Amino acid sequence: MEIGKKTWVIAEGYIPSWSYRPSPQLISHETACILNATDKDAHVDIMIYFANKEPTGPYQITVPARRTRQLRFNDLKYPKPIPEDTEYSAVIMSDVPIVVQHTKLDSRQPENSLLTTLAYAE
Amino acid sequence: MEIGKKTWVIAEGYIPSWSYRPSPQLISHETACILNATDKDAHVDIMIYFANKEPTGPYQITVPARRTRQLRFNDLKYPKPIPEDTEYSAVIMSDVPIVVQHTKLDSRQPENSLLTTLAYAE
Amino acid sequence: MEIGKKTWVIAEGYIPSWSYRPSPQLISHETACILNATDKDAHVDIMIYFANKEPTGPYQITVPARRTRQLRFNDLKYPKPIPEDTEYSAVIMSDVPIVVQHTKLDSRQPENSLLTTLAYAE
Amino acid sequence: MEIGKKTWVIAEGYIPSWSYRPSPQLISHETACILNATDKDAHVDIMIYFANKEPTGPYQITVPARRTRQLRFNDLKYPKPIPEDTEYSAVIMSDVPIVVQHTKLDSRQPENSLLTTLAYAE
Repeated sequence: MEIGKKTWVIAEGYIPSWSYRPSPQLISHETACILNATDKDAHVDIMIYFANKEPTGPYQITVPARRTRQLRFNDLKYPKPIPEDTEYSAVIMSDVPIVVQHTKLDSRQPENSLLTTLAYAE
Repeated sequence: MEIGKKTWVIAEGYIPSWSYRPSPQLISHETACILNATDKDAHVDIMIYFANKEPTGPYQITVPARRTRQLRFNDLKYPKPIPEDTEYSAVIMSDVPIVVQHTKLDSRQPENSLLTTLAYAE
Repeated sequence: MEIGKKTWVIAEGYIPSWSYRPSPQLISHETACILNATDKDAHVDIMIYFANKEPTGPYQITVPARRTRQLRFNDLKYPKPIPEDTEYSAVIMSDVPIVVQHTKLDSRQPENSLLTTLAYAE
Repeated sequence: MEIGKKTWVIAEGYIPSWSYRPSPQLISHETACILNATDKDAHVDIMIYFANKEPTGPYQITVPARRTRQLRFNDLKYPKPIPEDTEYSAVIMSDVPIVVQHTKLDSRQPENSLLTTLAYAE
């Protein structure tokens, strides 16, 4: 089943440097939820854009065939980690169609905020 | 009135295993709000994709003609319940055009989080 | 300037019957934020769909030329008010292109939830 | 890399006049997160529409080539600041393709609300 597009954009990214609650589930994070409903593995390249410097990347991940993956931007380490407390945008390119939804947990305060939106597809 | 598309995707799904408040209205849940504005019943098949195993489904539901239905993923039981505390994606396919909006209540803490986004249409 | 579409859908609607704080700004509400960037008044018909009964409407409103309007569904009175604590969907049809964004304030608890998403355009 | 569209709309805008916490990061604000992934600077014109008066603008900003910019509407000063406690919509026009995501922090209460949605693209 081929569903989705090959290029997606999350324009709003920001990883806070602290969390009120340090448990793994509730730590502040930014997530790209990626569905690959096809029968081929998706090889995904992610470029990260900043306000004041050249983009970095590509970060390379794989989403296996018929699988979903909730990628935490906090976990991207190569070529280099995304700095905290820094505004960024992400361009996500796949070799097969995928669907990307952006979710964010901001737990800088005792009352967490949870956000989600569909990414921009092209 | 024919409005919408026949294929929709919610890439980000996650049913928490607990709620701070156990009242039915405020229990943690994931919802697909489905509008069928046509004059025919919508027969809807839902496939659920996971991170580490093959997809399950189809889960089959009906949205009657000229009706809306707020489907809680927690309530899908056949062929088998969606496991809690597990990341999933949903592909929603209908035989008539529908519109799908994704809403989530996360009440794992006393301060609930409520989220919503349009699903991806194709 | 003509921007937008003539048909929009908000699939997820629900007006809670109570608010923790009764001040007008912070009372629980559902809003359709409608921009009419054209040079003609927009005559807008809204149909409301339910889970268990026939749709009601059209509710008729006007958004003047070059104006924005944040319509609270709580305020729709004719042909009849939208019942509280009832799930509904809204189909919004205009005679000129408009843009519709859905915003919801849920203040049933001391910690309010504020949500927003683009409506579905066709 | 050319990604995005040249015209975007944020239909729901509202800058609260007060914040519970006055720290710069947590002050109530409305943001348009703009990615310019092209190799040319983006010259962006923003028109602001109101409920009861003629639109103002254009507000003019630049998003450099291969950069992201999180524009706070609170910071738009020329031709005149956007009034607080006033509903508005924004039409964002660029001379190169961009991607726009809308984010809002409402910190009128101790429990902040954080919202996000993709803007409408045309």
